[in-house]
Amino acid sequence: MTTRTVIRGGLVITASDEIHADVLIEDGRIAALAASGTPAAEAFTAEKVIDATGKYVIPGGVDGHTHMEMPFGGTTAADTFETGTRAAAWGGTTTIVDFAIQSVGHTLREGLDAWHAKAEGNCAVDYAFHMIVSDVNDETLKEMDLLVEEGVTSFKQFMAYPGVFYSDDGQILRAMQRAADNGGLIMMHAENGIAIDVLVEQALARGETDPRYHGEVRKALLEAEATHRAIRLAQVAGAPLYVVHVSALQAVAELTRARDEGLNVFGETCPQYLFLSTDNLAEPDFEGAKYVCSTPLRPREHQAHLWRGLRTNDLQVVSTDHCPFCFTGQKELGRGDFSRIPNGLPGVENRMDLLHQAVVDGHISRRRWIEIACATPARMFGLYPKKGTITPGADADVVVYDPHAEQVMSAGTHHMNVDYSAYEGKRVTGRVETVLSRGRVVIDQREYTGHAGHGVYTPRSTCQYLN
Amino acid sequence: MTTRTVIRGGLVITASDEIHADVLIEDGRIAALAASGTPAAEAFTAEKVIDATGKYVIPGGVDGHTHMEMPFGGTTAADTFETGTRAAAWGGTTTIVDFAIQSVGHTLREGLDAWHAKAEGNCAVDYAFHMIVSDVNDETLKEMDLLVEEGVTSFKQFMAYPGVFYSDDGQILRAMQRAADNGGLIMMHAENGIAIDVLVEQALARGETDPRYHGEVRKALLEAEATHRAIRLAQVAGAPLYVVHVSALQAVAELTRARDEGLNVFGETCPQYLFLSTDNLAEPDFEGAKYVCSTPLRPREHQAHLWRGLRTNDLQVVSTDHCPFCFTGQKELGRGDFSRIPNGLPGVENRMDLLHQAVVDGHISRRRWIEIACATPARMFGLYPKKGTITPGADADVVVYDPHAEQVMSAGTHHMNVDYSAYEGKRVTGRVETVLSRGRVVIDQREYTGHAGHGVYTPRSTCQYLN
Amino acid sequence: MTTRTVIRGGLVITASDEIHADVLIEDGRIAALAASGTPAAEAFTAEKVIDATGKYVIPGGVDGHTHMEMPFGGTTAADTFETGTRAAAWGGTTTIVDFAIQSVGHTLREGLDAWHAKAEGNCAVDYAFHMIVSDVNDETLKEMDLLVEEGVTSFKQFMAYPGVFYSDDGQILRAMQRAADNGGLIMMHAENGIAIDVLVEQALARGETDPRYHGEVRKALLEAEATHRAIRLAQVAGAPLYVVHVSALQAVAELTRARDEGLNVFGETCPQYLFLSTDNLAEPDFEGAKYVCSTPLRPREHQAHLWRGLRTNDLQVVSTDHCPFCFTGQKELGRGDFSRIPNGLPGVENRMDLLHQAVVDGHISRRRWIEIACATPARMFGLYPKKGTITPGADADVVVYDPHAEQVMSAGTHHMNVDYSAYEGKRVTGRVETVLSRGRVVIDQREYTGHAGHGVYTPRSTCQYLN
Amino acid sequence: MTTRTVIRGGLVITASDEIHADVLIEDGRIAALAASGTPAAEAFTAEKVIDATGKYVIPGGVDGHTHMEMPFGGTTAADTFETGTRAAAWGGTTTIVDFAIQSVGHTLREGLDAWHAKAEGNCAVDYAFHMIVSDVNDETLKEMDLLVEEGVTSFKQFMAYPGVFYSDDGQILRAMQRAADNGGLIMMHAENGIAIDVLVEQALARGETDPRYHGEVRKALLEAEATHRAIRLAQVAGAPLYVVHVSALQAVAELTRARDEGLNVFGETCPQYLFLSTDNLAEPDFEGAKYVCSTPLRPREHQAHLWRGLRTNDLQVVSTDHCPFCFTGQKELGRGDFSRIPNGLPGVENRMDLLHQAVVDGHISRRRWIEIACATPARMFGLYPKKGTITPGADADVVVYDPHAEQVMSAGTHHMNVDYSAYEGKRVTGRVETVLSRGRVVIDQREYTGHAGHGVYTPRSTCQYLN
Repeated sequence: MTTRTVIRGGLVITASDEIHADVLIEDGRIAALAASGTPAAEAFTAEKVIDATGKYVIPGGVDGHTHMEMPFGGTTAADTFETGTRAAAWGGTTTIVDFAIQSVGHTLREGLDAWHAKAEGNCAVDYAFHMIVSDVNDETLKEMDLLVEEGVTSFKQFMAYPGVFYSDDGQILRAMQRAADNGGLIMMHAENGIAIDVLVEQALARGETDPRYHGEVRKALLEAEATHRAIRLAQVAGAPLYVVHVSALQAVAELTRARDEGLNVFGETCPQYLFLSTDNLAEPDFEGAKYVCSTPLRPREHQAHLWRGLRTNDLQVVSTDHCPFCFTGQKELGRGDFSRIPNGLPGVENRMDLLHQAVVDGHISRRRWIEIACATPARMFGLYPKKGTITPGADADVVVYDPHAEQVMSAGTHHMNVDYSAYEGKRVTGRVETVLSRGRVVIDQREYTGHAGHGVYTPRSTCQYLN
Repeated sequence: MTTRTVIRGGLVITASDEIHADVLIEDGRIAALAASGTPAAEAFTAEKVIDATGKYVIPGGVDGHTHMEMPFGGTTAADTFETGTRAAAWGGTTTIVDFAIQSVGHTLREGLDAWHAKAEGNCAVDYAFHMIVSDVNDETLKEMDLLVEEGVTSFKQFMAYPGVFYSDDGQILRAMQRAADNGGLIMMHAENGIAIDVLVEQALARGETDPRYHGEVRKALLEAEATHRAIRLAQVAGAPLYVVHVSALQAVAELTRARDEGLNVFGETCPQYLFLSTDNLAEPDFEGAKYVCSTPLRPREHQAHLWRGLRTNDLQVVSTDHCPFCFTGQKELGRGDFSRIPNGLPGVENRMDLLHQAVVDGHISRRRWIEIACATPARMFGLYPKKGTITPGADADVVVYDPHAEQVMSAGTHHMNVDYSAYEGKRVTGRVETVLSRGRVVIDQREYTGHAGHGVYTPRSTCQYLN
Repeated sequence: MTTRTVIRGGLVITASDEIHADVLIEDGRIAALAASGTPAAEAFTAEKVIDATGKYVIPGGVDGHTHMEMPFGGTTAADTFETGTRAAAWGGTTTIVDFAIQSVGHTLREGLDAWHAKAEGNCAVDYAFHMIVSDVNDETLKEMDLLVEEGVTSFKQFMAYPGVFYSDDGQILRAMQRAADNGGLIMMHAENGIAIDVLVEQALARGETDPRYHGEVRKALLEAEATHRAIRLAQVAGAPLYVVHVSALQAVAELTRARDEGLNVFGETCPQYLFLSTDNLAEPDFEGAKYVCSTPLRPREHQAHLWRGLRTNDLQVVSTDHCPFCFTGQKELGRGDFSRIPNGLPGVENRMDLLHQAVVDGHISRRRWIEIACATPARMFGLYPKKGTITPGADADVVVYDPHAEQVMSAGTHHMNVDYSAYEGKRVTGRVETVLSRGRVVIDQREYTGHAGHGVYTPRSTCQYLN
Repeated sequence: MTTRTVIRGGLVITASDEIHADVLIEDGRIAALAASGTPAAEAFTAEKVIDATGKYVIPGGVDGHTHMEMPFGGTTAADTFETGTRAAAWGGTTTIVDFAIQSVGHTLREGLDAWHAKAEGNCAVDYAFHMIVSDVNDETLKEMDLLVEEGVTSFKQFMAYPGVFYSDDGQILRAMQRAADNGGLIMMHAENGIAIDVLVEQALARGETDPRYHGEVRKALLEAEATHRAIRLAQVAGAPLYVVHVSALQAVAELTRARDEGLNVFGETCPQYLFLSTDNLAEPDFEGAKYVCSTPLRPREHQAHLWRGLRTNDLQVVSTDHCPFCFTGQKELGRGDFSRIPNGLPGVENRMDLLHQAVVDGHISRRRWIEIACATPARMFGLYPKKGTITPGADADVVVYDPHAEQVMSAGTHHMNVDYSAYEGKRVTGRVETVLSRGRVVIDQREYTGHAGHGVYTPRSTCQYLN
């Protein structure tokens, strides 16, 4: 028997359209859209009717970059798949793509299995995996083919973190060549970690231990350099490239240049780079540690370049790089040595709201909001049109969004399992009201009605920008 | 009483989605879409059912640049609004935006009234107008405000054709300032006509009278120069800019540079620049005259840069600049003097097919095809979402397109009122099968079922890329 | 009988060398250089010995851009050839290239004859002429050939001042084509005067009459636009281009781009753009009028780009554009209407000192000082090696320069015939001590020993950068 | 007692001047120059008079990049300091700067001592040393300071050749930081050797063993990448950078970009990149091995970009990278495996002539010839004004050059100790006639009159472009 829900009277916003339409959901999928008030719309019948009058009806967010329960620097990211995906739901995000990790000396399969084990049965919303490749060798390269076939179609490498995740340029080139063959997408953490580590050591030797030095040693030029290098290696390999968490204006410039040359190069930025800056890293009393992540926050003037890139499509995606560590007990590991502060910020719950605020502030249009937060990440990572849009046949991952509600972001009210908010006290306009995941209401007028295990693993096809 | 049509079983392609859906049309508008085969789709009932199985269901094309019945060089473009819009329908284009002309010494109103008179009651599909501004003065500037209010929201100026359409940089600046205030969009024919006229005179003095000299004197650098100049004037005025018929790679580079700077600058190219070249202009026996248009065709190597621009969105629109002159009696006016060849090519009927061929050839994706040919021109010129998409509420301008049919382009079979085809003998894959204009079938399985007067004037809102 | 002078013990600085050498002068020319203290040097005998111990011995300055006695805006530049060249000598400049003017409707010859008449018998140092071409026609083009042959090898055109000096793009193209043939060099005043005049009219209509609005309406973007346009026209003509008085960073960027493309494009800036800014234009009580010139002074941040350009040779020459108007009675013509302020600044006496200060400040090296102020202007305008260097065979135009002396610039002490100094109160290190013009001492330890009529007209060969 | 020579009647050409002058030499130095035919010139008396009528009198060439007796790939470069410097003299080069090598695990001092031992007493002309730093560590960094003080002021690092000379980015950064402090200049072999080694291995695995694959795997993009990376590392360190043997147009573009940003970045190219191409690498019968060097020869279209760079000073120096290996017995080591072909070409004898040919061909002016081959390398490496110019006080390293003589380059007639010429059969105009080294004639009208041991070690000051 068919379960039907209809969402009536809202403004349906997708990456390309803004229409007043009623949305009919059957069996977890979008079955039909009809112009509100028409006979066609009136013909929709359903067990459940959600009134979205005066609200936006948008696709559930797709967060292409999260790190739930990730081990890092001797501790583990504070959100489990359970708490993290619940917070995602609260924030209007209905799909996450998390990073399974290959450890050096282990196979991709071992890493992937471990991450499946962490996630399975625990998620409030749907999830998928990228694979972090820490150890490129002949075996790993063969495994990449298998993973693409089973729905893990993107592989992250690091030009930073020597001795941990770091790949040298030869390993990068080999992985890119493989991706060029098997349709995989290489995602790059683009910072020259070898050079940065020299600067870290020198700074510490000079007694510069405060969190703000984290921002100073991880220089914008060294992000730009690595971005450029990754682009040229990809060009040699004939492979596409997706650069994660772009923060420096000089890195944006490299992406812009590459795209002007017609290369298949893509860039992601994150809300922290759009809304926070080195001013936060310089907050006194070790408070700056809350904002330690890599790539680091940049001086405020970089923000305009990121917004420009988002408008002109030199940046295509806004993900969170959600990787929360509690201030107490975790961030504090780096007191007296900024290099020991676990890198990462909470954000999976805040992304859709912060980007709506960007609409209010005039940085982007409503359609572009949906594009960079829902549609493009879904396409980029092979989830489209199941995810990221509202169209017949798509999964019924839908958010009823109140564009007029005001809220104040705070650790006191958020649902992420972390003891601070990176946006504490920030007032924004717009709020998630109701969230459906595959047709099921998981947030109902700001009440959580979901459950761990509702979210399922979602294999992915290959990047849809490469056809 | 409601008239209902349902188009079943096709692949609905819009600028953002490709879905298997049934499209329900009520009273000339898209009423609803439902995933094919679902109960929701099966619930659609209609008087008329169109079977689109195995076909594409796409928005009717929007051709943002036509010149029906345009007087030029002592003769008049060979397609009337009647013949031209009928040919448009045959080619899957359901909206044209034509150019009304202000003559020097006359008001905008006079020009607009004249064009309304030509078009009214004669069109097979819907139409709108841009306004060519040939005489910027205080009165003209005031009229621009009025025209924006009544739905003529874009104004074309010429940096070429001194003594006819030419505006000097002061006139351009004034019009741009006005557009910055009233929301109008300045469209620019960007060629340094003052310099070109010197080269024309010198070429003729040297006895270089063949059509191919048309391409040599209208130098790519002088298109690029004017493009750059228009961009900087727009920047000074704080106005957006839309550059028509971009053909030179150097002009694309100027647009790319401006967009990298975050300027609101847009570029249009045309099928002739993507598929033809100076090789055509050099055809013997005056045959080159068939390919005389301005900006001129360029050497073949420019094409790759145009395709790159279309892929990376440095060019946003493909229009036709449809302005046909018969070879016999019209193009022939320029025998012995290329400068007297009427400028213009037929194309309104060929655009959708040629761009589908570009999909087949791998230059662009299917969604990008619809974006550059339907959605973006509709948005750019304030016709969205009435035109350019298939979504509830939009006008039911819909094309059932057979992606597998083959055809050979030829004057012998085309429906434009001109004695030659610019693509004579070109074999392409894909063909328009059935066309609906506001719900009414005007081409029915390759039979014309429309009539002059069905097409109505469509006032436009302002450019939707500037919000 | 030979007249011999020897300058002993100084540091001889040329564009390429810094050597401790004695300089032997015979009959007005450099006869020999010998390393100080060697037998070869000791063998030099002379009637007159100048002791330059602890001093620099440098080539006399070549100021490639002056306007003595120039009529402008209903008044005339305050320095005659007599007073202006005397001031030049005081400032260490021993050659000026002034601009003869063709008025519309008159021939080049008439203009040149008029300027010869003004200068002949009146100059303290040598002089040459460029020709301002205000009226390009077939006759003018033929005259250009003749002028090149007789030593007037450069021609200035204006993209500004419509109705006065303005040439349209066709006239520019024709003159450039001719220069490409006859070896002449086109010098360009690159500002889009047509657009600027619109902005001037609008500013005045808004009641913005203060001198600072002169800087606001003559926008940097409109200088850059014209610079780019001139470059492309020169490229079409196959001609070299010399852009005068570059002041905007955006114009420097256009020159840089052109040079990166390998084009024969050159740029000149002036001390006022390097040391003054819009802050001066905004001085209260109409004092800003003292700084009104075109191109206008720019905001301070432009200066770093000009210095960069001078260092990397994207700018090659520093001239003065010396064109003084007294504050009282001349600049005052523009009270209540900035557009009526005569355009121009005094500077011929200050250039060598200001650029030495730039050496002291670390902007440029000593050799580069001589290069941009002496050697390159001499080469650019076909005066090398007669002028601009100290080498056997060159004219003995030599300055003994005290690099340690301090001075304060002031109208109270300068020798230009104008009632204010653009650098009033500025303290600089370095001062001209003794000046020889063709072997004759015209400034002798800061006493004027020259006379009107010593300076002679110096015909020029063609630009030496084009071999 | 003073020894005096006078060279009469030639055209003395330096980087800045072309004058008809007699050159007086006293005790091994230029004592004086006097305009030919003047009393001052006639007053010159000397034991020896060289008649240079109709000839050029130019500074002896400075070759800033040679590898005499260099061990590489299990063999040793075929020219000893004796044979190599004698060949240099024959070719009009009177100073070489060779590369002393630090081996991994050894000190800089050990390497330098070894090179001193090889050279001392064996050289026909003067010589100096750069230092190759293969092993950056705390001790090495301290030694760099000492070497700068004793006249070894430049340090070469390799981004290629992992396991041999390779430095990682951290080592590069550290060395650059040290150079920024002590005034040293970092010279960079800029190729991404890590990535290249992957491509080498893959090519060999595919059976691609011919010399031409050497050019294919060492991709232009990987030279450009490394060039960019070196630039950014230098920017982070605040250090200048000199990139050796630039061959790829994309690398020139990176240098151009950096210089447009005002960075202290310099580039050297070599005659082989200007005159040879991948066509040579593809010569059959293993003949391509003669042209194997790294960076490799590029396709012919790169040459125009190198010439452009030399004209606009984006490239400043032409050195030879002279490192000859005999075809028989040495190059042959790589039959069946291009990666085992010793890298290097002979050229120290050909450079001045090839660059004069470039003057004849119109690529550069005569003064630029002297600048890139004599004056700039001397300045760049702290040898100026002792070397690289003809001016009072300079070392009397002088070449009398016959600009009209013709010669055919050939192993049959050259003086380098290698069994082939890279330019076999090439006909050029211009030939060295007589060469003086510190006043002593070492080539006398094409007869060798020098001797091993005449040439002395010449300590260097720091780079003179950084003042």
